[in-house]
Amino acid sequence: MTKVDYPIITLTTDFGLEGPFIATMKGVILTINPQVTIVDVTHQIRTHRVREAAFLIRSVEPYFPRNSLHVVVVDPGVGSERRPLLVVTERSMLVGPDNGVLSPFFRDEGCRVYHITAEKFFLSPVSATFHGRDIFAPCAAWLSTGIKPVAVGPEVHDPVRLDLPIPHRVDDGAIRGEILYIDHFGNLITNISADLLRESNLPSPVVRLAQHRVRGGLRCYEECPPGSLGALINSWGLLEIFAPQQNAAKLLNVDVGEPVRVEAA
Amino acid sequence: MTKVDYPIITLTTDFGLEGPFIATMKGVILTINPQVTIVDVTHQIRTHRVREAAFLIRSVEPYFPRNSLHVVVVDPGVGSERRPLLVVTERSMLVGPDNGVLSPFFRDEGCRVYHITAEKFFLSPVSATFHGRDIFAPCAAWLSTGIKPVAVGPEVHDPVRLDLPIPHRVDDGAIRGEILYIDHFGNLITNISADLLRESNLPSPVVRLAQHRVRGGLRCYEECPPGSLGALINSWGLLEIFAPQQNAAKLLNVDVGEPVRVEAA
Amino acid sequence: MTKVDYPIITLTTDFGLEGPFIATMKGVILTINPQVTIVDVTHQIRTHRVREAAFLIRSVEPYFPRNSLHVVVVDPGVGSERRPLLVVTERSMLVGPDNGVLSPFFRDEGCRVYHITAEKFFLSPVSATFHGRDIFAPCAAWLSTGIKPVAVGPEVHDPVRLDLPIPHRVDDGAIRGEILYIDHFGNLITNISADLLRESNLPSPVVRLAQHRVRGGLRCYEECPPGSLGALINSWGLLEIFAPQQNAAKLLNVDVGEPVRVEAA
Repeated sequence: MTKVDYPIITLTTDFGLEGPFIATMKGVILTINPQVTIVDVTHQIRTHRVREAAFLIRSVEPYFPRNSLHVVVVDPGVGSERRPLLVVTERSMLVGPDNGVLSPFFRDEGCRVYHITAEKFFLSPVSATFHGRDIFAPCAAWLSTGIKPVAVGPEVHDPVRLDLPIPHRVDDGAIRGEILYIDHFGNLITNISADLLRESNLPSPVVRLAQHRVRGGLRCYEECPPGSLGALINSWGLLEIFAPQQNAAKLLNVDVGEPVRVEAA
Repeated sequence: MTKVDYPIITLTTDFGLEGPFIATMKGVILTINPQVTIVDVTHQIRTHRVREAAFLIRSVEPYFPRNSLHVVVVDPGVGSERRPLLVVTERSMLVGPDNGVLSPFFRDEGCRVYHITAEKFFLSPVSATFHGRDIFAPCAAWLSTGIKPVAVGPEVHDPVRLDLPIPHRVDDGAIRGEILYIDHFGNLITNISADLLRESNLPSPVVRLAQHRVRGGLRCYEECPPGSLGALINSWGLLEIFAPQQNAAKLLNVDVGEPVRVEAA
Repeated sequence: MTKVDYPIITLTTDFGLEGPFIATMKGVILTINPQVTIVDVTHQIRTHRVREAAFLIRSVEPYFPRNSLHVVVVDPGVGSERRPLLVVTERSMLVGPDNGVLSPFFRDEGCRVYHITAEKFFLSPVSATFHGRDIFAPCAAWLSTGIKPVAVGPEVHDPVRLDLPIPHRVDDGAIRGEILYIDHFGNLITNISADLLRESNLPSPVVRLAQHRVRGGLRCYEECPPGSLGALINSWGLLEIFAPQQNAAKLLNVDVGEPVRVEAA
């Protein structure tokens, strides 16, 4: 029986579910390590949206067991000179392209980053269009069997970092943030954390989005009367704006990046 | 190795596949019980359609092994006072919110219903927006390891029941039912069972939907000539109306709830 | 513990993910063989597109371990006289309807085809609309436990074969092919292989699609300037036409079957 040091491999891609890509990657993984459990995070990252994938895997990773291995392939530069990376933290390993998609983990405890170069862990020949199959899946599978990170390639110190939006305080004490993610229900997740709100000490804070005033300080969706906009601290500890029983993103016609402001009443 | 009394956990939600929700629930489950097999039923229940989820899990449950555990989270009232429930029957366990989604199982052999209250089986803190992660997934995982139902909370006798449409006979002996579910192909599944049709003893029964007359008594899709509407007894033993090689729901512009009538020719 | 000769069962269907079909098949499989690992290839084959399913499973199968078992159910003739088949090659087993969907495997090493007739391996009764549940899933599960192919039914020598488009040379030495598959990104995969291009020895070949001239001989997506059309040899060794960072299928409004021509410059 294969030794399994990393018993779970998760997959996050923009490959969609209707084609051969995902099953092909799973076949490659199971050929190398038949004992591993494969879990799909999502394959419906919008095409080439590196930041969306970065946000998603950052949100999901803490809920997986320690010693899980996460494969993230949103990779518009496939086949070019961009490097394939392995990121190792105290909790997890991650593999993916060097385009920033793994950069939310660079400040995690014990983080080290490796340039994957060891061709013995690749399929051969390596195609120019599907490194998910030829590099990332087989490397993840070999890593799950217990090979050492350093065996896949040299450590690097200049990986690409995403410029993620950081909410900031403005002169009048208000907080300026933006919409980071829109979920399946159309709820608008901002980059403003519960911690920041607490520190800001704003007296009876009011949330503003576009020209709308949002009812803040709610505890759950049902507390907001139909027809209003509500805001609560969501399950990731982030300020989230919603419209009860409706899709707020469609209703307000807003997208990721839309500014959000929290100010004193 | 963890003891696995319930080796399979299924998931049925309206969370969609594009976000972090499902993988997060799976991570929580696998952290508690790494041995369990997780099977997705669907995550594409239409938003907040409790009856659709109830129909689906009721259709699927009999085909799973005994001692499977089904998690059903279609939960517009998340974070409010609605109770989280555990339903135990002789075949299966189910967890989900007390909004009727589990009520199709209340008449199963040996059914008992429990109010899940034991916080030691929850993630901490419990968010107001994602009980799938904080209550239902971890409780299911703990139950799969063999903890007794009574350990999660007290038995209850007043769970919410769905008012599911029951087909009935009208004065002239005809049967009045309705469309219960529309499948991926646009086939219209009614609530009229083969058993009811047999008992009704209608001479050469005719099926009517909206203003359309449907060709009944067919044995398979191919028996119906293109351009007609056909009806057959489907794989769940229910009367199903279809248009050969076409999407009947779109063709006729009908939805769930549309009345269907079976009458003597 | 059940003996598992074929430890992986894959599923390829046009059943969609929103309904009860896929989970029902998985429940049936796990009831018969709880040890097997089930992998979804896709359930989003377009309704009744037998050729699309044939192309997909042919693309995916080589990447799975030897002794995997592939279930392919795109089956407009369900319930009619069409036969359920088992295909056995030296690498894999496949089950599916006798409508050509498995015919790409008929020339594989050691291929034998069987008519599945042994009702002891079916669910009972067999419905007329869901052989995925009643015939294909349970037969696959029994086969995975090690029963011999000949136990499911007699060998047949006249299975239905798909008439797959074969690219050919025309008088002036040019190659005529067509679009075989459109992937999630809108890239256009042709039936013209790298091998055929090599043999053709066309001097500086030019690719033409509809009235467009395509920049050929590229190595990766990034080599093509935005606003042009590019062609490269993709990860399956096939000529693929793309538009950088765009959906070529939508941009050019072309579908599967569109002619493609490669000629001397």
